[in-house]
Amino acid sequence: MTTSVRGGQLARLLGQWHSLPGRHRSPDYAALAGAIRGLLTDSRLPLGVRLPAERELAEALGISRTTVTAAYRSLRETGHLTSRRGAGSWTTLPNGHRVASSGLWTPDDDMDMIDLGVAASAAPVELVPAARAAAEDLPRFLGSAGYHPTGLMELREAVAAGYTARGVPTSPEQILITSGTQHALDLVLRLSVPAGATVLVESPTYPNALAALSARRARINTHGLDAAAAGWDGEMLLGALRQTRPRLAYVIPEFQNPTGHLMPADLRERLVAAAHATGTELVVDESFVDLPLDGTPVPPPVAVFDRHSRVVSIGGMSKAYWGGLRIGWVRASAPLVQRLAALRVGVDMASPVLEQLVACHLLRDAETIVAARRAELSSRRDALVAALGEYLPEWRFTVPAGGVMLWAELDGPISSALARAAEDVGVRLAPGPRFGLDGTLERFIRLPFALPADDLREAVRRIASVRHDLDRAARPAWRTPAVIA
Amino acid sequence: MTTSVRGGQLARLLGQWHSLPGRHRSPDYAALAGAIRGLLTDSRLPLGVRLPAERELAEALGISRTTVTAAYRSLRETGHLTSRRGAGSWTTLPNGHRVASSGLWTPDDDMDMIDLGVAASAAPVELVPAARAAAEDLPRFLGSAGYHPTGLMELREAVAAGYTARGVPTSPEQILITSGTQHALDLVLRLSVPAGATVLVESPTYPNALAALSARRARINTHGLDAAAAGWDGEMLLGALRQTRPRLAYVIPEFQNPTGHLMPADLRERLVAAAHATGTELVVDESFVDLPLDGTPVPPPVAVFDRHSRVVSIGGMSKAYWGGLRIGWVRASAPLVQRLAALRVGVDMASPVLEQLVACHLLRDAETIVAARRAELSSRRDALVAALGEYLPEWRFTVPAGGVMLWAELDGPISSALARAAEDVGVRLAPGPRFGLDGTLERFIRLPFALPADDLREAVRRIASVRHDLDRAARPAWRTPAVIA
Repeated sequence: MTTSVRGGQLARLLGQWHSLPGRHRSPDYAALAGAIRGLLTDSRLPLGVRLPAERELAEALGISRTTVTAAYRSLRETGHLTSRRGAGSWTTLPNGHRVASSGLWTPDDDMDMIDLGVAASAAPVELVPAARAAAEDLPRFLGSAGYHPTGLMELREAVAAGYTARGVPTSPEQILITSGTQHALDLVLRLSVPAGATVLVESPTYPNALAALSARRARINTHGLDAAAAGWDGEMLLGALRQTRPRLAYVIPEFQNPTGHLMPADLRERLVAAAHATGTELVVDESFVDLPLDGTPVPPPVAVFDRHSRVVSIGGMSKAYWGGLRIGWVRASAPLVQRLAALRVGVDMASPVLEQLVACHLLRDAETIVAARRAELSSRRDALVAALGEYLPEWRFTVPAGGVMLWAELDGPISSALARAAEDVGVRLAPGPRFGLDGTLERFIRLPFALPADDLREAVRRIASVRHDLDRAARPAWRTPAVIA
Repeated sequence: MTTSVRGGQLARLLGQWHSLPGRHRSPDYAALAGAIRGLLTDSRLPLGVRLPAERELAEALGISRTTVTAAYRSLRETGHLTSRRGAGSWTTLPNGHRVASSGLWTPDDDMDMIDLGVAASAAPVELVPAARAAAEDLPRFLGSAGYHPTGLMELREAVAAGYTARGVPTSPEQILITSGTQHALDLVLRLSVPAGATVLVESPTYPNALAALSARRARINTHGLDAAAAGWDGEMLLGALRQTRPRLAYVIPEFQNPTGHLMPADLRERLVAAAHATGTELVVDESFVDLPLDGTPVPPPVAVFDRHSRVVSIGGMSKAYWGGLRIGWVRASAPLVQRLAALRVGVDMASPVLEQLVACHLLRDAETIVAARRAELSSRRDALVAALGEYLPEWRFTVPAGGVMLWAELDGPISSALARAAEDVGVRLAPGPRFGLDGTLERFIRLPFALPADDLREAVRRIASVRHDLDRAARPAWRTPAVIA
């Protein structure tokens, strides 16, 4: 189905498209085309969407129709727009590009690109032995059709044991195995969020969670995190719950994506109580819970404070183990797990058997694997912090005590422009506005430290080079036609 | 979210609940409770749904409120219903049961059950060697975060080559790898079917496709297949397209699920032309295309006749290889594949890497594996046909020329009652009404021949024993509380 974006909507998304930082500017049509390419590249504007008619966009932006005509022509030339007389113009992916899992577009051949769009690491060395061992476990399962909508019992047991060890007694019947954490979130939203329901999320938050909520056509309210201070303002968060009484609230209490903040125990307890009072289902994304650094103590799981089955915890193995596994889970009441399983049969039936067996083997080695991952992330974080201090000392950030990313406040509302300029020098960035709604957060950028230290240092060096370019030179942020953004 | 079912809706679903076949009848309250359990067990009535108030259901069924009260009490006793004062009564899964991938409920300990609810086979012997080989391929992929939203290029190439060999030239860019065929369907529906859109499906059709369409809140129209004759009535099918001009039509042209019919080449061509004329997206489920039996020639793929990108083909490895793999795909235009990939990032990111490597190895052995599967299915089908001729000679069916199931016309509108009675003797059946809308198809039952011949013969013997019981004895169809249906 082709959806449309109205002139006013696109104008809001475009924000300050014409005021690229720097003393000199590109021609208006080129700046407009560049800004639209940026929205496409980082998927704030979806594929296959019909853009407004030239006249409508010109009015919405208060510019001449000639400028819009020239911008659309430029977008057609680079393969970002396809037009047909009578049917309008809709967004397309240029040849030679693909959609990456970050939602960001990338050239098919991106071998020289340093990808800071994805906040996940390469696989641990234990993966191949685990895969070999899992192949030998397979025969036990091959006599049946192989569908296990709630997951293999042995993996559910291992995941439940992990929760119990963290202080929330959990039975395997409370665990649903999913194909990754995002899949867990999507299933929970399908069950719990009817079209038009109100939800509360943090701002900034995880872009794919926003995508899943938009797909449910939820009405999204946000609680703004304070980048510099402790993150959540407890009074404001609980106040937002009480005022909007949302159907569901989605929070990332451990090393929040993207800010890296860790929610204190007392706020966890008050949040659960408030959710109970407002009839809100509290979805807790524990993607990063395994990754405290520097021996930082992690408060008890949010589910510890749950007396009324208000909390649904989701988690997975993408961050501490490997994203290519696609293993995640839901922890909820046993009846809710069964309802999710019944729903799941109409979505994707079940998770693969072999992958679940690999996960069982990895979880047996959890201590070793996670300790190595933490040590690796700790040194990578330090390398990133050092490089930022050296090359971009004017950027401000809190050094995160865990997780895989930091959230930097820039020296101007330049995040989207910077991301476009960085592509030109081989660095992919997810600009701040991807983590919020409607073009805000231009003063911020997410910087994961999942890559090797040398890559991080080189990426920061390159970012700094274009950052200073943006201030100095009249160069278009886009080269045509080989590079998209 | 808790949804409700109204009295009138439940009455329609219940159909002829009080007229269980047989000269004698259970008490009305027990028959009503039994019929509701049957709707739950085969998921025509979802988990977590609020049932109508007793007075409302009594009015809708034209019976006394006392009868409904007693039926609800019985359902509470067996764990199928939970009530709370002020909040009403909602459906629950009894302790000791789980949801199977067929959507049917099953006891946790169902070792002695012959499951004719699932139309899929055990794994081929080639699976373990393929898993071992895939483990050795893994290192090539472990250096990255492991997310490939469109799938691994080598698997996309192998799938594309399969289409090309079948006569539809296909490039890897036209293939999206998914986590099974159901997942492929769900993704396509998410992109193409907005809430309230009209869709056309066959009747009977695959229950999980109906579930996915209901989740989209589509308006479902049906084209009735003729069980006895050739299946599709071309004039009626094309007429239904022209009259309803649906957004999307879903068909299973090869060994249709559940009827086993094979759509002839000329109808395929006319269907594509009609879909183009009505602006309908034609989703073609090729789940069974690899499984012609007796050397039956398979007509060209529907996509052969597509000149206007109207056809989206979906398929997978569950039937000819193994369901526990969870590997499927979409074949569409390259731009549509990219839009699906962008959408998929917000759903489940990507399919697991290891599983895709296993699939590559299996596809290299396709000829051997599929030939063995066909030979196996052919002999199992013959065993099922022979057992039906011996034990249930009054049932009528067309012997299918492929696929994994036959669709039998019963000697009365007894399908749901028979399925409930069969549970008591250790046979799980998917009754006819699951394959349609609103309680029709009670004269039919789907019988897969995916299990070994001895199991099929024993299952038919047991079914025949309760079939004849239904005519003779005043025995409740339900035992309490150990067995659910």
